[in-house]
Amino acid sequence: MRDPASSFFQCTDKERAIFEAGIKLGTIYHQYVGVPLNLSNLESLEIAIRQSALVQPFVEDAEVTIDRDMVSKRQGTYKYLTLSGDMLRVSIKIRYNSVTVTGRLRYVKEMDYPLMYFE
Amino acid sequence: MRDPASSFFQCTDKERAIFEAGIKLGTIYHQYVGVPLNLSNLESLEIAIRQSALVQPFVEDAEVTIDRDMVSKRQGTYKYLTLSGDMLRVSIKIRYNSVTVTGRLRYVKEMDYPLMYFE
Amino acid sequence: MRDPASSFFQCTDKERAIFEAGIKLGTIYHQYVGVPLNLSNLESLEIAIRQSALVQPFVEDAEVTIDRDMVSKRQGTYKYLTLSGDMLRVSIKIRYNSVTVTGRLRYVKEMDYPLMYFE
Amino acid sequence: MRDPASSFFQCTDKERAIFEAGIKLGTIYHQYVGVPLNLSNLESLEIAIRQSALVQPFVEDAEVTIDRDMVSKRQGTYKYLTLSGDMLRVSIKIRYNSVTVTGRLRYVKEMDYPLMYFE
Repeated sequence: MRDPASSFFQCTDKERAIFEAGIKLGTIYHQYVGVPLNLSNLESLEIAIRQSALVQPFVEDAEVTIDRDMVSKRQGTYKYLTLSGDMLRVSIKIRYNSVTVTGRLRYVKEMDYPLMYFE
Repeated sequence: MRDPASSFFQCTDKERAIFEAGIKLGTIYHQYVGVPLNLSNLESLEIAIRQSALVQPFVEDAEVTIDRDMVSKRQGTYKYLTLSGDMLRVSIKIRYNSVTVTGRLRYVKEMDYPLMYFE
Repeated sequence: MRDPASSFFQCTDKERAIFEAGIKLGTIYHQYVGVPLNLSNLESLEIAIRQSALVQPFVEDAEVTIDRDMVSKRQGTYKYLTLSGDMLRVSIKIRYNSVTVTGRLRYVKEMDYPLMYFE
Repeated sequence: MRDPASSFFQCTDKERAIFEAGIKLGTIYHQYVGVPLNLSNLESLEIAIRQSALVQPFVEDAEVTIDRDMVSKRQGTYKYLTLSGDMLRVSIKIRYNSVTVTGRLRYVKEMDYPLMYFE
């Protein structure tokens, strides 16, 4: 993909890919947290999150899963709950020119925190 | 569906159904506006919105479409855009006891406004 | 406020006010859940939620508080968390013509659920 | 700030700061797009966005402005609209150890696109 914004960046391809990975992870978390869900719509939500990630610039692949155990344990009064960040597990592969970076979001138990990092 | 919250409401079944219709329309608009999209992920997003509406209390049916013309006309620099309220067309059927109300969201051209109403 | 959409509604003023109350509560929940917060930005967030409610049609008044106890107990690894629905307590007064309805959102402990209702 | 997640990252301090800048910009865009607004609540929203950015890890400073011209031109039927990405202008300063990176979001007219970049 040719990048019409390249003149705005003075950085390496790797740094650019890392930046884009950060954007995409922040996007997923803050766009979808709050969606009503139970076990019946988990899969359609995972697919929609994945597909919406794939339309963003420089995204080569994405995997999105929502923790079934958490959802089934927390379903409450009305047999549903709303998506929270700790249920999300995301892996998103960014390619910028020849560099590939994989951004990740997952709940880290020891930190009790949905951590975003990259590889 | 038995309603564990019935003691909080002093109103007719119709009024309750109307209230729930309002909640669900406000939910859809403000949860999903901002999702990255182009023609390739429209359908998965429509399905996810519909399915997430169906898990909410008293929702009997839901139809969600995103305006393909608007999306294809506005796809910009990076061949995607983000969902705005005027692209959404929603119909959501609420049943509370024996009363059914259909909430609607659609862009009304003369008002230049994504209007929520009910029938 | 004259209502340019009145022709879309065949209902009583009370039913209309109830519908609008539902919309506004769904809006607040699904717009702001996910906002990063700790005790330092609680008040600015409460003010912004309230002010954004006041610009919507037929809203006469709004009160928004975020539960300080929950926030201070849950602040984790990085000394912040993200807003969840159970922290929110909202009261929103809707006037349609001569009818006033107050919509409410608050966490109901016995239901373990952030309930929206009206008075 | 000591970083409890440092073991998850094998990268330079600059790369980490760039990643965090991306996260924060994605967060702001997708959290707040959709907020109801007109000229009366612009400032409280700017303040809330800024303050919520400041509670996130490694954020040293943030500036947020919403385009007053766009808002006043587009206020429609009910004298309000909802926040879209092109109205936002954000500058966010990230410090990781001794490295500082400034992430930016602004509408770039030639691209017709709300671009996120960094310096």
